[in-house]
Amino acid sequence: MPGLAALAALRADVPADIPVLLDCKVGDMANTIAAYARGYFDEWGFDALTTNPFQGYDAAEPLLRYRDRGVFVLCKTSNPGSGLLQDRQLDDDVSVSDTVARLAVEWNVAGNVGLVVGATYPEHLAAARAIAPKLPILVPGIGAQGGDVRASARAGLDARGAGVLLSASRSVSHASSGPDFHEAARAAALELRDIINEERP
Amino acid sequence: MPGLAALAALRADVPADIPVLLDCKVGDMANTIAAYARGYFDEWGFDALTTNPFQGYDAAEPLLRYRDRGVFVLCKTSNPGSGLLQDRQLDDDVSVSDTVARLAVEWNVAGNVGLVVGATYPEHLAAARAIAPKLPILVPGIGAQGGDVRASARAGLDARGAGVLLSASRSVSHASSGPDFHEAARAAALELRDIINEERP
Repeated sequence: MPGLAALAALRADVPADIPVLLDCKVGDMANTIAAYARGYFDEWGFDALTTNPFQGYDAAEPLLRYRDRGVFVLCKTSNPGSGLLQDRQLDDDVSVSDTVARLAVEWNVAGNVGLVVGATYPEHLAAARAIAPKLPILVPGIGAQGGDVRASARAGLDARGAGVLLSASRSVSHASSGPDFHEAARAAALELRDIINEERP
Repeated sequence: MPGLAALAALRADVPADIPVLLDCKVGDMANTIAAYARGYFDEWGFDALTTNPFQGYDAAEPLLRYRDRGVFVLCKTSNPGSGLLQDRQLDDDVSVSDTVARLAVEWNVAGNVGLVVGATYPEHLAAARAIAPKLPILVPGIGAQGGDVRASARAGLDARGAGVLLSASRSVSHASSGPDFHEAARAAALELRDIINEERP
């Protein structure tokens, strides 16, 4: 299990004052989710994770119980075909993804719930922000997936000019495959930070 | 990672002529799902797995490409609150879970797709069987979760009196916590097999 060993080493390398979000997209029965929570929160020490809402509230509740950890609910994912179910309208004329955003607001009793909305869909990001003005939104899909970072920042920022976690993965971690990989990754991350900050009021 | 080490040992203990389905409920972006497929199919040698349909077709496609492996799509899960999204009607008056069953039929080009429907919802199982007459259906939720095995067998069996995988987990693996645990597990599994066979035409 070399991948997990690498993840463990990486987790251990991150200083304790930097929060780490695991984008594991867990979704399962409550007793299994409770085991994921023990593993990822208690054993591994991750500060937040992502979860799939398809199985409903009782499958998310064991995560939500960890009041000091973040639980980001998949709302509109960044992949090209995410609309197949997520963009369908329910019989009350609200889309599946907007329904998930509403549910996440309900589930946010302890103030530990966020949403996941792909940067590839800025209009969905604006809709999620309107439904959930106070929830942090994790926004993957910039960089390799082609999402527009400026449009996503503008659509996702909350009233305080914050609340959006714009996440680039491959465009940072694979910025260079040469011996300068660490400097190239740092430069890509700093450039991204500066672009985001330019869009903040 | 003692849990994964136990899973690896268990996988290695199962003789090669017995198919093993991993109920991992994976759901992610295509490139990540392709990595899950390499891991679970190629590296671990599982014969089938379960996947969450929330992200759409492109997120399932890297699994479906493994034509000699089974891909079971979550349709109606066995947990008490699964209806929150799955029982909602879409704007064409078809429920989310029935829509997933229809999609799974579409995705079954290579004959390697199945459905997951909980034994706790026999009426949904009958609906899924009607939509997908030829797909195998994995039916968890009998035993500890209280699903009715006879009703589930009747609702899920296909025209040939087969095509349903009724799965009990805790009621078999935890049939006894004493030194007779292996005999108790065997007895529970055999009893379950006999009950299922009584319902077959």
